[in-house]
Amino acid sequence: MSSTTRTPQADRTRAMRQRLLEATVEVLVERGFSGTSTTLVSERAGVSRGAQLHHFPTKNDLVVAAVEHLTERRGAELAQTLATVPRGAGRTKAVVRVLGDHFTSPVFAAALELWVAARTDATLLAAVAPLEQRVGREAHRLTVDALGVDEQRPGDRELVQATLDLVRGLGLAATITDDTRRRTRILDRWAATLDAQLGAR
Amino acid sequence: MSSTTRTPQADRTRAMRQRLLEATVEVLVERGFSGTSTTLVSERAGVSRGAQLHHFPTKNDLVVAAVEHLTERRGAELAQTLATVPRGAGRTKAVVRVLGDHFTSPVFAAALELWVAARTDATLLAAVAPLEQRVGREAHRLTVDALGVDEQRPGDRELVQATLDLVRGLGLAATITDDTRRRTRILDRWAATLDAQLGAR
Repeated sequence: MSSTTRTPQADRTRAMRQRLLEATVEVLVERGFSGTSTTLVSERAGVSRGAQLHHFPTKNDLVVAAVEHLTERRGAELAQTLATVPRGAGRTKAVVRVLGDHFTSPVFAAALELWVAARTDATLLAAVAPLEQRVGREAHRLTVDALGVDEQRPGDRELVQATLDLVRGLGLAATITDDTRRRTRILDRWAATLDAQLGAR
Repeated sequence: MSSTTRTPQADRTRAMRQRLLEATVEVLVERGFSGTSTTLVSERAGVSRGAQLHHFPTKNDLVVAAVEHLTERRGAELAQTLATVPRGAGRTKAVVRVLGDHFTSPVFAAALELWVAARTDATLLAAVAPLEQRVGREAHRLTVDALGVDEQRPGDRELVQATLDLVRGLGLAATITDDTRRRTRILDRWAATLDAQLGAR
């Protein structure tokens, strides 16, 4: 729907959905998946139970939509941040640090709650697995572009994948210990490795 | 207690604790942290509720002890497996593959459940954080030894840390998508990178 055809009612509905989704991510980050309930979310969002149930009939509908919504917003933010990294010396280090920050954000914690819950919940997994694949492809594409990688060169595609698996691992570690200094040293060493190895085979 | 002073009663107690801890890991892997209850575990282990509560008064006591127990057993297994990797060409690739396998085992899934639950549970976090640090130090030491790394060489310590964060990230990805082929390609490329980069600065 273009902005000229939007009705006040449609705007209100859109704003309410937005509030529900953002409240859901907040509650996931604060209380984890098992501590998240639709009641808690509608209270936090200031939305009536009836309206909430109309838009998102189940907890799974709500949490999947919320993580999808935030992932898209965060993907756009990542693309924007990467676009501001200057060309030239130090670029790889800056790109890798941006990726490291991205995977230690509260949104990563919300996504992690969803992934782990999906491991033992087949209904949730059916929704989360395609979302995770889309997120993975998007992060891969952004990283390839930011680093100027030619994926035709043998081994370079795998180095990009390794970079994303590394920052995912660092993000997981960061959820229980605050290790920014350790993380920065590792990321800087990784960036030097990429500079030496991309296109090297 | 040395084996000569063990009584039949002490043996029975030890065997019962063992059954409880292994049943806990199984239930964590199958049902996740929130789906794990002390009742379910005592049923699975064939141990009375009273005996279970005597040894592990709370769910947190049980899950932390269980993951600690399995982590120690798995640490010993990792050390043994790494000790069988032949010296010479291909050693780094073999070591990195062993690490990759280690972090995609069911025990990793049980530990992941505990880490994620600890993120939003202060009591659990107080028990899990030191356990996680010990596990991290042990894995680091085993990897340094297996790869013959001299940590005095600038940057090499960080390459070992990056290797472990990479396999942790791959382990997390593996919990929701079965991607053994992707993982093997990434690990092999990383092993080639380590061969080129360790001692290179």
